[in-house]
Amino acid sequence: MTTTPIREPGCELCDLAALRPVYADSKLSVIVVDDANYPGFCRVIWRDHVREMSDLSREDRLLLNEAVHEVELAVREVMKPTKVNVASLGNVVPHLHWHVIPRYTDDAHFPAPVWAAAVRQTEENTLAARRALLPELADALATRFARRTNQG
Amino acid sequence: MTTTPIREPGCELCDLAALRPVYADSKLSVIVVDDANYPGFCRVIWRDHVREMSDLSREDRLLLNEAVHEVELAVREVMKPTKVNVASLGNVVPHLHWHVIPRYTDDAHFPAPVWAAAVRQTEENTLAARRALLPELADALATRFARRTNQG
Repeated sequence: MTTTPIREPGCELCDLAALRPVYADSKLSVIVVDDANYPGFCRVIWRDHVREMSDLSREDRLLLNEAVHEVELAVREVMKPTKVNVASLGNVVPHLHWHVIPRYTDDAHFPAPVWAAAVRQTEENTLAARRALLPELADALATRFARRTNQG
Repeated sequence: MTTTPIREPGCELCDLAALRPVYADSKLSVIVVDDANYPGFCRVIWRDHVREMSDLSREDRLLLNEAVHEVELAVREVMKPTKVNVASLGNVVPHLHWHVIPRYTDDAHFPAPVWAAAVRQTEENTLAARRALLPELADALATRFARRTNQG
């Protein structure tokens, strides 16, 4: 089925090139966010400029949910977080996307959500050790999504 | 298939009676949260004391994702929010649950996440009008989940 892509001029999540995804297809892209306090923070971004999960067809919704799941698995496998946080908010940029965030007891906000006020500064050595895992995370994501595409 | 329920003594999300759900079955429950600033805030709580989405079987994961979707639909239909926010965090209470939050441009934190610092106080009349929709929201949720169970 061929459908016309939905793009919104000026939307930062519509501009795939600027996002430098580790994976992209016609439906979605996956990025590793460059967040100084949260190495391993990933986003799954729906390609079309759509507002809510419930604006998707059932088939697309399941596809996106399963993509978020794959990212969660890669994040757990490589980053070994204490907890994974998953969220779709989009109040500022109402273009459907999911945050997948590895959380640790020593991170800047734990146990509060990353959007709350910071309660500490994580040790630089700790952050550096997590940052050193990012190439492995990118590989794990690329491998998982390549496998997924080949199965699909 | 019969499996042994997983419960954690002292976990506030394991105690179904205290949660007063609008819907509950052996797999999950749905509650309308009593949040003064966010009428219509709902939670979908997995019955078993499980930590992450990726700890569920594929079947259970799809079931929970679809339950969150049903709640999103009911919240959109009744509360008519500007945006829906959906999140699974669980850093404080690591018992798998999803927040489904109707957001409005005049709410206490918009466009920031509800976990950020509040930026305004919503007009009491506005909150009262939203609160007046809660019986209708409870009905919409009960109807949707009853239908879902009958189909299942």
